[in-house]
Amino acid sequence: MRFHTRKWVKPEDLNPNGTLFGGRLLAWIDEEAALYAVVQLENAHVVTKYIAEIDFKSSAKTGDIIEIGIEVVKFGTASLTLRCEVRNMMTREAIITLEKIVMVNLDAKGNVKPHGKTEIEYIKNRLK
Amino acid sequence: MRFHTRKWVKPEDLNPNGTLFGGRLLAWIDEEAALYAVVQLENAHVVTKYIAEIDFKSSAKTGDIIEIGIEVVKFGTASLTLRCEVRNMMTREAIITLEKIVMVNLDAKGNVKPHGKTEIEYIKNRLK
Amino acid sequence: MRFHTRKWVKPEDLNPNGTLFGGRLLAWIDEEAALYAVVQLENAHVVTKYIAEIDFKSSAKTGDIIEIGIEVVKFGTASLTLRCEVRNMMTREAIITLEKIVMVNLDAKGNVKPHGKTEIEYIKNRLK
Amino acid sequence: MRFHTRKWVKPEDLNPNGTLFGGRLLAWIDEEAALYAVVQLENAHVVTKYIAEIDFKSSAKTGDIIEIGIEVVKFGTASLTLRCEVRNMMTREAIITLEKIVMVNLDAKGNVKPHGKTEIEYIKNRLK
Amino acid sequence: MRFHTRKWVKPEDLNPNGTLFGGRLLAWIDEEAALYAVVQLENAHVVTKYIAEIDFKSSAKTGDIIEIGIEVVKFGTASLTLRCEVRNMMTREAIITLEKIVMVNLDAKGNVKPHGKTEIEYIKNRLK
Amino acid sequence: MRFHTRKWVKPEDLNPNGTLFGGRLLAWIDEEAALYAVVQLENAHVVTKYIAEIDFKSSAKTGDIIEIGIEVVKFGTASLTLRCEVRNMMTREAIITLEKIVMVNLDAKGNVKPHGKTEIEYIKNRLK
Repeated sequence: MRFHTRKWVKPEDLNPNGTLFGGRLLAWIDEEAALYAVVQLENAHVVTKYIAEIDFKSSAKTGDIIEIGIEVVKFGTASLTLRCEVRNMMTREAIITLEKIVMVNLDAKGNVKPHGKTEIEYIKNRLK
Repeated sequence: MRFHTRKWVKPEDLNPNGTLFGGRLLAWIDEEAALYAVVQLENAHVVTKYIAEIDFKSSAKTGDIIEIGIEVVKFGTASLTLRCEVRNMMTREAIITLEKIVMVNLDAKGNVKPHGKTEIEYIKNRLK
Repeated sequence: MRFHTRKWVKPEDLNPNGTLFGGRLLAWIDEEAALYAVVQLENAHVVTKYIAEIDFKSSAKTGDIIEIGIEVVKFGTASLTLRCEVRNMMTREAIITLEKIVMVNLDAKGNVKPHGKTEIEYIKNRLK
Repeated sequence: MRFHTRKWVKPEDLNPNGTLFGGRLLAWIDEEAALYAVVQLENAHVVTKYIAEIDFKSSAKTGDIIEIGIEVVKFGTASLTLRCEVRNMMTREAIITLEKIVMVNLDAKGNVKPHGKTEIEYIKNRLK
Repeated sequence: MRFHTRKWVKPEDLNPNGTLFGGRLLAWIDEEAALYAVVQLENAHVVTKYIAEIDFKSSAKTGDIIEIGIEVVKFGTASLTLRCEVRNMMTREAIITLEKIVMVNLDAKGNVKPHGKTEIEYIKNRLK
Repeated sequence: MRFHTRKWVKPEDLNPNGTLFGGRLLAWIDEEAALYAVVQLENAHVVTKYIAEIDFKSSAKTGDIIEIGIEVVKFGTASLTLRCEVRNMMTREAIITLEKIVMVNLDAKGNVKPHGKTEIEYIKNRLK
């Protein structure tokens, strides 16, 4: 799993208990999953369709630095199934895992469309 | 299921495709689940522990009014399992469902603590 | 008065004194009044025209759960006058009242237009 | 009336009709009134107590530059009554007026406290 | 230098160290520079092109009131060079200075375009 | 240079011209620089002191995915000088460069303190 996006937990991200607000964290993850899918499927019209098994393993507090990792579970015909893990960057301790995030590929009208991809591609290879 | 909190989808809530950003919606739901649990368990120290089966059934666009419904699935010893449905307020069409949200009751130090609740209570009855 | 939308006061909602920022509260109320009017008048082009008598009765602190209630004061020809009360959900103590919020019904070009409504309607009845 | 704070209306400030969201505007004004009172009363513990006569005269759209003006209506014993006008900076057209905003001076415990001020003071004079 | 826009530092503006988040401050300044240029060049299509010498002289904490000052350094053919200073409004202590902010004037297609301005103009004079 | 944090440009991030708001971009970069310094210096009390040579090379529009790269220019006794580049993730085109960002290491009281670091360290090596 490769970890890319990093966040610095700030006071605006906290719940009333003073720890990272779970809803904020889910919003960060949904953005990361969406942009990962947009890059892999080379299509801006990608939507989150299904998420299963979200497990909050530990929390984070203000000043913590977290990093979000995504990996591909499966390429479907018109879908892409991802797995996500968020961890504390300093200690590598897991904060939350999402076992299954299903992203669906759409055409410009919003209909499901096969994406024709079967494996991970790296942009540097595409750009050659 | 009782629907309470309502949201007016504004430009700041959109993803780049011009529909409601899924991450924003998840943040709204997590807040609603948390405050529902705080009220039922009469305890401010409640955290989201687990979410299963998030199904995005349709989207919403700017100007739509959505409402968030919560119902109790089960009272555990130290947990409360909820179900959530978000729908378009004008058409009653479902936007997203979360079949299982497990909230856990904590003491002031953050340890799991039994909550002693076994059924839904209404505040107006408590206040009598 | 029926109370719907609920908010969980988080650190991002506080003023420098550590209590709920009045401006944030007014923004929440304006949204609630707008969506209430949109639903009642069955028209998305509704604007706030006038507000009178905003009384800040008590404050709220982080972790408080508040709920926003709206009731109709009067149906005008092209307007809808509302009254709003926000209270602490746990204690039912009043936080702020707005005695008069005048919403105006517009056509697609932004001109004032009669709305033809004279009483509150419930969506479930409309949908039958 | 002196106009100080200026805002550039951005997409994140719009309501679903594509004009400046009234609630955002009220939040900006409440902040301006609060900081004006803090400066005049030389006390950080100042709260908004009452607002009357909010008249939405025109709207603003994305890209408009607006400016917020405040003037003192009356110095009370423990209060300060302000008047506020927001206008389009380029055309000087009025956008909203608030005829009466009553700010109350508090001590550190949150109790009402006389502020001892009877007229507007300028900081440059205080700093001499 | 004339100081206009004022901000009240709130908990949502803090970094994890509990002082004003530098990124938030830079966002406030960029907005102020942009709107200053829009007003002076009488053109909404103005972009920030270059910034040099940002010096963070002191910080601010929640409850502080800061004010942002802008002055013109130079009118270029298609550009406007500004200088910006942000200070604590109560003490006049400097918080940050930006020695050089170069704004560029564009036409509707986004191409650089001469603006024809050579000196500061006041709106009240234009409106006569 | 290693690129980590990625952002999906959403409507809430736009300026009135419909392109990425420069202030938002600067806020994202300041956060990235801060967390990079916190990780390298193993100290949460790190502040931005000076930035030079910010060059806006191109813009971004809604739906674009950008990535933020940081590299070390110099380890000072109590400072860390960074260089930052932000690019469009799909095309690798440069959006903005910051040639020099000086972060300063502080002790718990906010005084400048030597950090004792002379080269980049990777967390995985520290964790061994």
